[in-house]
Amino acid sequence: MAAPTAIKTGADLSTAGELAQQLRVDSVRSSTSAGSGHPTSSMSAADLLAVLVARHLRYDWDDPKKPGNDHLIFSKGHASPLLYSVFKAVGAVSDKELMTGYRRFGARLEGHPTPELPWVDVATGSLGQGLPDGVGIALAGKYVEELPYRVWVLCGDSEMAEGSIWEALDKASHYKLSNLIVMVDINRLGQRGPTDLSWDIETYQRRTAAFGARVIAIDGHDLAQIDRAMREATEGGHEQPTVILARTVKGRGFSEVEDKEGWHGKPLPPEMAERAIIELGGERDLLVRGPMPDPSARPARLTAERPDVTMPVYSVGDKVATRVAYGDALAAIGARTDVVAMDGEVSNSTFADVFAAKYPERYFEMYIAEQQLVAAAVGFSARGFTPFASTFAAFFTRAYDFIRMAAISRANIRLCGSHAGVEIGADGPSQMALEDLAMLRAVHGSTVLYPSDATSAAALVAAMADLDGISYMRTTRGAYPVLYPSGEQFPVGGSKVLRSSDSDQVTLIGAGVTLHECLAAADQLRGDGITARVIDLYSVKPIDTGTLVAAAAATGGRIVVAEDHHPEGGLGEAVVEALTGAGRAELSIAHLAVRDMPGSGTGAQLLDAAGIDATHIAAAARDLAK
Amino acid sequence: MAAPTAIKTGADLSTAGELAQQLRVDSVRSSTSAGSGHPTSSMSAADLLAVLVARHLRYDWDDPKKPGNDHLIFSKGHASPLLYSVFKAVGAVSDKELMTGYRRFGARLEGHPTPELPWVDVATGSLGQGLPDGVGIALAGKYVEELPYRVWVLCGDSEMAEGSIWEALDKASHYKLSNLIVMVDINRLGQRGPTDLSWDIETYQRRTAAFGARVIAIDGHDLAQIDRAMREATEGGHEQPTVILARTVKGRGFSEVEDKEGWHGKPLPPEMAERAIIELGGERDLLVRGPMPDPSARPARLTAERPDVTMPVYSVGDKVATRVAYGDALAAIGARTDVVAMDGEVSNSTFADVFAAKYPERYFEMYIAEQQLVAAAVGFSARGFTPFASTFAAFFTRAYDFIRMAAISRANIRLCGSHAGVEIGADGPSQMALEDLAMLRAVHGSTVLYPSDATSAAALVAAMADLDGISYMRTTRGAYPVLYPSGEQFPVGGSKVLRSSDSDQVTLIGAGVTLHECLAAADQLRGDGITARVIDLYSVKPIDTGTLVAAAAATGGRIVVAEDHHPEGGLGEAVVEALTGAGRAELSIAHLAVRDMPGSGTGAQLLDAAGIDATHIAAAARDLAK
Repeated sequence: MAAPTAIKTGADLSTAGELAQQLRVDSVRSSTSAGSGHPTSSMSAADLLAVLVARHLRYDWDDPKKPGNDHLIFSKGHASPLLYSVFKAVGAVSDKELMTGYRRFGARLEGHPTPELPWVDVATGSLGQGLPDGVGIALAGKYVEELPYRVWVLCGDSEMAEGSIWEALDKASHYKLSNLIVMVDINRLGQRGPTDLSWDIETYQRRTAAFGARVIAIDGHDLAQIDRAMREATEGGHEQPTVILARTVKGRGFSEVEDKEGWHGKPLPPEMAERAIIELGGERDLLVRGPMPDPSARPARLTAERPDVTMPVYSVGDKVATRVAYGDALAAIGARTDVVAMDGEVSNSTFADVFAAKYPERYFEMYIAEQQLVAAAVGFSARGFTPFASTFAAFFTRAYDFIRMAAISRANIRLCGSHAGVEIGADGPSQMALEDLAMLRAVHGSTVLYPSDATSAAALVAAMADLDGISYMRTTRGAYPVLYPSGEQFPVGGSKVLRSSDSDQVTLIGAGVTLHECLAAADQLRGDGITARVIDLYSVKPIDTGTLVAAAAATGGRIVVAEDHHPEGGLGEAVVEALTGAGRAELSIAHLAVRDMPGSGTGAQLLDAAGIDATHIAAAARDLAK
Repeated sequence: MAAPTAIKTGADLSTAGELAQQLRVDSVRSSTSAGSGHPTSSMSAADLLAVLVARHLRYDWDDPKKPGNDHLIFSKGHASPLLYSVFKAVGAVSDKELMTGYRRFGARLEGHPTPELPWVDVATGSLGQGLPDGVGIALAGKYVEELPYRVWVLCGDSEMAEGSIWEALDKASHYKLSNLIVMVDINRLGQRGPTDLSWDIETYQRRTAAFGARVIAIDGHDLAQIDRAMREATEGGHEQPTVILARTVKGRGFSEVEDKEGWHGKPLPPEMAERAIIELGGERDLLVRGPMPDPSARPARLTAERPDVTMPVYSVGDKVATRVAYGDALAAIGARTDVVAMDGEVSNSTFADVFAAKYPERYFEMYIAEQQLVAAAVGFSARGFTPFASTFAAFFTRAYDFIRMAAISRANIRLCGSHAGVEIGADGPSQMALEDLAMLRAVHGSTVLYPSDATSAAALVAAMADLDGISYMRTTRGAYPVLYPSGEQFPVGGSKVLRSSDSDQVTLIGAGVTLHECLAAADQLRGDGITARVIDLYSVKPIDTGTLVAAAAATGGRIVVAEDHHPEGGLGEAVVEALTGAGRAELSIAHLAVRDMPGSGTGAQLLDAAGIDATHIAAAARDLAK
């Protein structure tokens, strides 16, 4: 290979055309060398990316953290060969890394892009997520940071079938995100055959326009059309996101695979790759850079200052719902300019509305679109904010794929789910989160908190602001007595032993509503002469193994765990996992959980019916203590 | 209250108007009596429902199982007072039940509708699900049963922000579901204030039309307009779903709450309810029935016959991927006319395409829209079919809310997730299901299967066809040796002890890919003079507690569990939960799972890096056996 050409900046279209061929060649080379990957899905979008990177993307490749940098998101993450070939073309990664690192063990050029690479904002690869994430970044740029960056998102046509794409476009137009530009690579072919809409550009046009975008339909292989569309997209004077509908050909540039079925997600065999490279004009080593961002751009509002925060104070014994404490505490830590909040049209139930009233400029209503709700938080996290997203705990199940991917994005987001468990009563099972603890515990690196009173809830909201990764707080609908005085500490990973003596016979473990039931059960048991240790397991993950092991040792391994959740993956399994993970254990466990399908009723009736109220806890403890 | 008027059938519009007022009065009465519920969201849609039920819905209320009956789905499930008031107006429930049963403990008139009521097809209450479910029913009616029924879906305007609505409309137009009629109750107000689009009917019109619907915009309180729209919707000669956009007023009919914020999800206090009833013209006791379905309508294709099925046969030792066995077995049981299948545009990876090739008339491509994928299965289940839905295991996280709600719908659906765990290799973590077992185990009444070889996979696919509730099979990307001879039985809830002796020192438990690693580990251990029992835990839920307890007893409580899944909620926790739930247990557990964020690599590299391959299993066993 020849020595690289000198860096070209502000390249003309003919250079962009050369660059496009280089991106195709490198997409073929890298995927063939790796023995897997998606070259044909990369080749269809190569012209778009070449013109973008050479002439429109304002990005300082030597300083990916520069505030004014545009953002480039591959929502079609499987086109990673193209993205990494772009990184090579701008000199950010070497040809050697491209050829020996792609999809290899321990390397950062993973099969689908992740922020292990400094130029990648969010992980993609689960389709329909890059665009909603981009909406979050665009919201941050337009409304909070007031930075001039643009967010460029490359979507595949297959992913336009994902509902989340339409949640994103709806919010993009609602919030007038003129800084968002979506390029749709309409190459007609999905994994197993033609897409839903094939090359029906007109229907794409009608749909995206109806969702409020300014739409520009082009031939995605005509460099002049691409250039004009991108220029139009970046001209001011409009208040809409732009969608560029690019009609393209999958595998473009290599006649043996162009527009052919059966070539999705397959590298070209080496001898075919050779022919492809010849047809594409051979290997090149162009080094091209496009326009630079405004070097003086600095974010508005966001400061590193940590102001004094006045946390809410609750009186022991007063009845206060933990969801109220969530709202109070969120509004309190809102003194920090990095804190932003969003909610799925239930802020008067989750009490996110307390924050919204105090800091309207940092609150974003996402309406009933939970996927976009979580994606917006991920976008704000990518911009260094401290986002809190809330809805009913049950409805975070709608966004599980987004939460899972947020972990791969190394996002730092905080979720608060209210109205959890059968405790909610009359609304019935559709509104009862009975799977949320299992769902959130299983997320990589997650923190799962389930406070029982307002003091601990407020303290843990403040703690969440400084946690990395995905953190989740489950709050309760009803008002229960405040248990802890103001100023009490609640370390993440800790627990509270609320009742203990030297002669405890059994340990009762609860969190949230069941902790109150455990306390009442301990009172009942005392009447029978049974002394019970009671543990408030407010930190479900990480879990306080030490306190659990000590309690097991002190009470002969006799433990009752009660949870307002299905028996799988929640409090009970977290406890036995911790105890059996800590060494040889001799245990007698009674695990009380919601095992039947609940209906409507009062909270008390449903706690009783599920067998998780004080009476059932006491009965289980008596059985163990026999 | 006066004695009920005689049943009116084929009621004129003035009777429908009276009926609408009755529905409003009863919505107020029932929710006030219950002390909770959504009267104002019911009142906005009362005119629509009155005209529909009196004049257009073809339904035999005395025989809800009649094949020709239309279907009525409240996608806005919180309008349950209206639905239950309809049930009273047709004589299906009594006024007494309405007034004493609504939202009460143990009663069937739950806060949100569920199929505990024989006239309800699917549970709703998580917004944006009733319409996708309805698409499934309409697919069944049009393409498989060839029945003339129509599917009427009442949507709220708030839920139009859910992406799943657009997945549904996309598929409805793609499949030309002229038997689907969507009524959107555009009352402008959500829970906490105005909706995203308020009364911007024109935007709703553009969006729904762009998604392929025939759109009729009306004043939702003008009975003649409603009637005309429904007549148009039911006239033949078109191949599109119909969307009726009804501009309505929340709380319509009671001036104190009409179009006012702050009245979502609140019953009227008793004295206000009294004034409302007076303003609405007082209580009524109309008994109205609309048109009847064709009594001779019989479903095509679906028969109760259970033909002989020739299951695929695999030779012990041959390398066959379990996903291949899924496809083979599904195609084999496709001889049953009740079996239908659908996939999310990856049927050549899940091997659902084997079924699709053999039974194209019972296969439905859902493209990349996993929410609609699961909802379609729920719809087919409501019609008595035996649906199997497949995609990559990771992407079922996209549909978790739908899976959770499917359980509340008492749906019998089968899900198959392929390409699970780090074993998939180069594609990286976005494509690795590492949370799916936790997610599916936590679903009420679910069955979770994870076969290790083709013989067991095929047998379990056949077993799934006869399971109630939500069943899930996790399949593996790579090909591994067939372990079991043809004809071996694999009861759900069972397990296989593959290695055992009278002197076993440790138990190794795996499923799927880790079972093969456990077998290899046992071989390694034998070289060290350590005899290991090996259990194939193909049924993760229900779990074979007896075999686990016996193994623990036989091996001194020393157990290694290895799983290609995050440590929470999967195999390991299922095992310790079973063991500690079976009585006093003394255990030494080594739980090997994917604890770090994986990247790309070969499957073998990633199993090693996660510490779940044979070498790590053997090392953990040696530690325990010391």
